[in-house]
Formats: sequence, C-alpha cells, structure tokens
Amino acid sequence: MSGWRKLGVIAGGGELPVVLAEHLAGTQRPYFVARVAPNADPALDAHPGATHGLGQMGARMDAMREAGCDAVVLLGQVQRPDLKTLQLDDVAISMLPAILAAMPKGDDALLRAVLNEHEKAGFTVLGADQVMSDLLATPGVWGAIAPNEQQKKEIAKAAKVAAASGAFDIGQGVVVCDGLVLAVEAQEGTDAMLRRVAELPTAIRGTPQARRGVLVKRPKPIQERRIDLPTIGVRTIEGAAGAGLAGIAVEAQGALAVRRDEIITAANRAGIFVYGFTANEVDAA
Amino acid sequence: MSGWRKLGVIAGGGELPVVLAEHLAGTQRPYFVARVAPNADPALDAHPGATHGLGQMGARMDAMREAGCDAVVLLGQVQRPDLKTLQLDDVAISMLPAILAAMPKGDDALLRAVLNEHEKAGFTVLGADQVMSDLLATPGVWGAIAPNEQQKKEIAKAAKVAAASGAFDIGQGVVVCDGLVLAVEAQEGTDAMLRRVAELPTAIRGTPQARRGVLVKRPKPIQERRIDLPTIGVRTIEGAAGAGLAGIAVEAQGALAVRRDEIITAANRAGIFVYGFTANEVDAA
Repeated sequence: MSGWRKLGVIAGGGELPVVLAEHLAGTQRPYFVARVAPNADPALDAHPGATHGLGQMGARMDAMREAGCDAVVLLGQVQRPDLKTLQLDDVAISMLPAILAAMPKGDDALLRAVLNEHEKAGFTVLGADQVMSDLLATPGVWGAIAPNEQQKKEIAKAAKVAAASGAFDIGQGVVVCDGLVLAVEAQEGTDAMLRRVAELPTAIRGTPQARRGVLVKRPKPIQERRIDLPTIGVRTIEGAAGAGLAGIAVEAQGALAVRRDEIITAANRAGIFVYGFTANEVDAA
Repeated sequence: MSGWRKLGVIAGGGELPVVLAEHLAGTQRPYFVARVAPNADPALDAHPGATHGLGQMGARMDAMREAGCDAVVLLGQVQRPDLKTLQLDDVAISMLPAILAAMPKGDDALLRAVLNEHEKAGFTVLGADQVMSDLLATPGVWGAIAPNEQQKKEIAKAAKVAAASGAFDIGQGVVVCDGLVLAVEAQEGTDAMLRRVAELPTAIRGTPQARRGVLVKRPKPIQERRIDLPTIGVRTIEGAAGAGLAGIAVEAQGALAVRRDEIITAANRAGIFVYGFTANEVDAA
C-alpha cells in the first residue's frame, strides 16, 4: 500500500499494534504511534508517538497532524467506553451524536462511526493488512496438521453460524464440536469463550488427549474490513488447546494473524490444525 | 388435558419435575415418576416411581408400562450423554441410529428423537403445560415492575436474536443491554450465561444500583413444544439480578415458570421486571 506519507497508528491493547509498529520501524516507513491509555502495550513507549485517553479525540488528532500523519490505522483492543467516567475533549464531544447513535448497534457500528470521524478530519483510514500484508490470513493449511473431511464440515457449520451471528453485529467467533454449537461469542471475547468451552462436560467436547471440535473466526457480513478484523495469536492457540479443540479456522483474507510463525509453532506443539477457509468453500458446504 | 389414564413423568434434574409431581399428587391424578439418575431431585423419591440410568430406555419404558402409564411427559435437565460411558440396555441400543443422527444437530433434534421413540413404543407424549397449565408463561407484566418503552425495544431486539440463534438449534437465551447483545446462550445454559454477564465491564452492563438490560428466553422457531420449553425459576431471577439486569422477558405461551409465585416475590424484592411478550409484539417492533 502506498499513497501515504506518514502513518498514525492508533493503538489499543494487545500485540497487534506492537507487531505493526515493529514492522514499520523495521521497514523504515515514517510512523507515529498514538497510544490509547490505559490499553496500549508498554512496549509501544519505545516507538515515536504520544499517549492519550480514549476520549481525547481532538488532542490525539492534533498530535498526529502535527507529526505529519496523513493516514491512520485503528487497531488493538479498546474497551467500550463508560460515558459517565470518560474524559471527553471538545472534538470528542462534537462526535458524540454519531457515537451515541452507533453504540447500541454493535461494535462494528461503533468503530465505523469512529473511523468516519477520522476521515472527516482529513485522515485516510487504512486497514492493518494494507500496511502489513503478512498479517492477512492465507487460505489452506498453515502448520503440520490438516483438518480432515469431518472437521471441514464442522468448519462449514461454525462459519455459517458465525455469519448469522455477525449479521446482528454480535461477534465473530463460534465453537462447534461433533456438529453441535457449543458456544457463540458476544461481548466476552474469544479468550473467555474458549475458557467456558473448557468448562463444559467432556461428553460434548474434546480433551487434549482426544481433540474434537473447532473454533471459527470470520468477519461479520456487515464488517468494515479496515477495522477490527478477527484476529488470532498464540493466546488463541493456547485457549483452543485448553478447550480440547482439534483446530482453529479463519476466513482467508478476512482475519489477521499476529506473529504467524509463533502461531504455527504453538499449534504444531499442541497438535491442533490452523486452517484458512474461503467463503465459497463454507457457503457451498 | 384429559385423554390419559396414568402419566409417566420422566424426570431429569431441577425443580420442574418436583413441581409437576406435587401438582399431580395434589390433584389426585394417577402418575408414576421415572427418575433419571443421577439428575433427578431426591425430593422425587417420595413419589411413586422408579429410578433408572439415562441409557436404561427399555427398563424405564417397561416400568412405566407395568405401572399402567399410557402417556408420558419428559422434563427436567439431563446432560448430553457420553456414549463411551453410558450404560445402554437393548432398547436403547435399538434407538441408537436415530439418536446418533440427531445428536450433532442440536438439543431440540436430540430430544425430538427421544420423544419419537416413546411414541413408537405406544406412549402419548404430552407437554408439561398440557398437564399443568399454570406453568405456562402469561402475557404482560407479572410482578410489581413493568418494562418501560426503551426496555420493550431491548426485549424486541433480544427476541429477534434469540429467534435467529434458535433457528440453528443453538440456544434459547440472549442478554441485551443498551441495545448491545452482551451474551448468546449455547451449551453452557442460562445460569452460566448470566454469570459471565456479571463479569463484563460495568461500562456495558447494569448493576444492582443502576439496573440495565434484559434477559430474553423464547422457544426455538423449530422447537417441538412438548419438550424443553424455555424455563425460568427463582434461580433465573437471582442470576439476572446479580448480572445487573433490569428484567427478564419470556415468550407468553412459549415458556414455563417454575413456582410462579416465588418468581414474582423474588423479582419484586430484587427490583426487576418479569414480562411475557407475544411473538407479534416483538416481531412487529
């Protein structure tokens, strides 16, 4: 992706912003990290940038503009704000009507409103994968283990349920085992969902000794693909392994892999597959 | 409901079978409790009946037939069986093809297969509400507190999501707060879902001091209404209260209330509403 001079990385929590900042530093692209406190990883303090609270929208945009940023990427986890305690600056207050209208609809609607405000302020908004194409999930088998035909059927079922859930802007993750939907992700997030699968009776789920079932993550059908694409990392592998799953599947070109090499190493060690399915593959199944 | 001489109550866990047995005893209807071990409540030991493991299908049917039962009702919670450890008698083994075909589809499919086997064996299968109409959820406000217009909109949204989830035979419960879907129930059950809502950040949920959000339970669109209708009881009220919810709504004529008087007392004490909506009301919203 060209077309930008300097990139503002608006960084929430998790490893993804760290990986992107390291990539930008390593490839000597001009960048500026707008760390969102208190979510942003302390490792980002080593990069050029500044730190603001979630509600300091104007100060953050000013800092990026003064640093020369013409484009921004929004990534990493940010908790839904509590408007009663959030410190809003004037620019944030001017955004409030749009934000308030979007909040009840779902996370995609909310992030889309935030994205729109950045575009209105003159920034080009990019997806993380447009800056670092290595992040994007590839089709097919990633590691040493491939899903069998039965598991591919489970992937297709979970993918269909995830699409239905995503159409309501609910969540991106679903766990299916032996054809049965064990869990549907909403506001608790993937890690918490995998922990509760690990607590279900072993009659309906797999174990590390006899793995069964699959976690599927895919974008919402309505999803603005520049923000909040489903993400997997080593922690996702560990969660799936702990829940006794046989593998993880993501939509190829529709999910981000944070430290792909480490994901594959962890998956091979745990004995679980990681698979990138295409929309055609699961919708035809 | 007439048309039966003696009723076999196939009793899984929870209070519902106890309430029904007490009702039958109190109204002097002939009945026989087929307790499913280890799920059935010990309080059922005081009623005429016998105890069998889940897989003793033939022995259980024989006992009910010998006791003179011509009709059965299946109710109460039973964990999905682990076929590796389940003790199956000959009749159960003969049912296996149908059961195995249904298991991956969902709980409704599985229970429907079990129901069919009882019909094939000559029993009339009744719904619990056909035996005790007081169980069935009524429309409107149950207790001292009514949902306001905003809350009725949340009920409608949660009801729509529950219908979508139920169409996949996933679950019957959904929690919505400020328009946002906080949780979708799958195999973990309502109580566990409410516990995880209580662990979400207070920015997106209510608290006992400032209640927000609603739990909706409604039948799956595909549901066989004689079995496994959504059920609420005092424990549901306590769970909803602990999760900071403003209320609970169920589909009128499409859910069972276990000890309705106690439900209302507990809801009034906690300061939450209980509301029976009609399908028309939420589908039009």
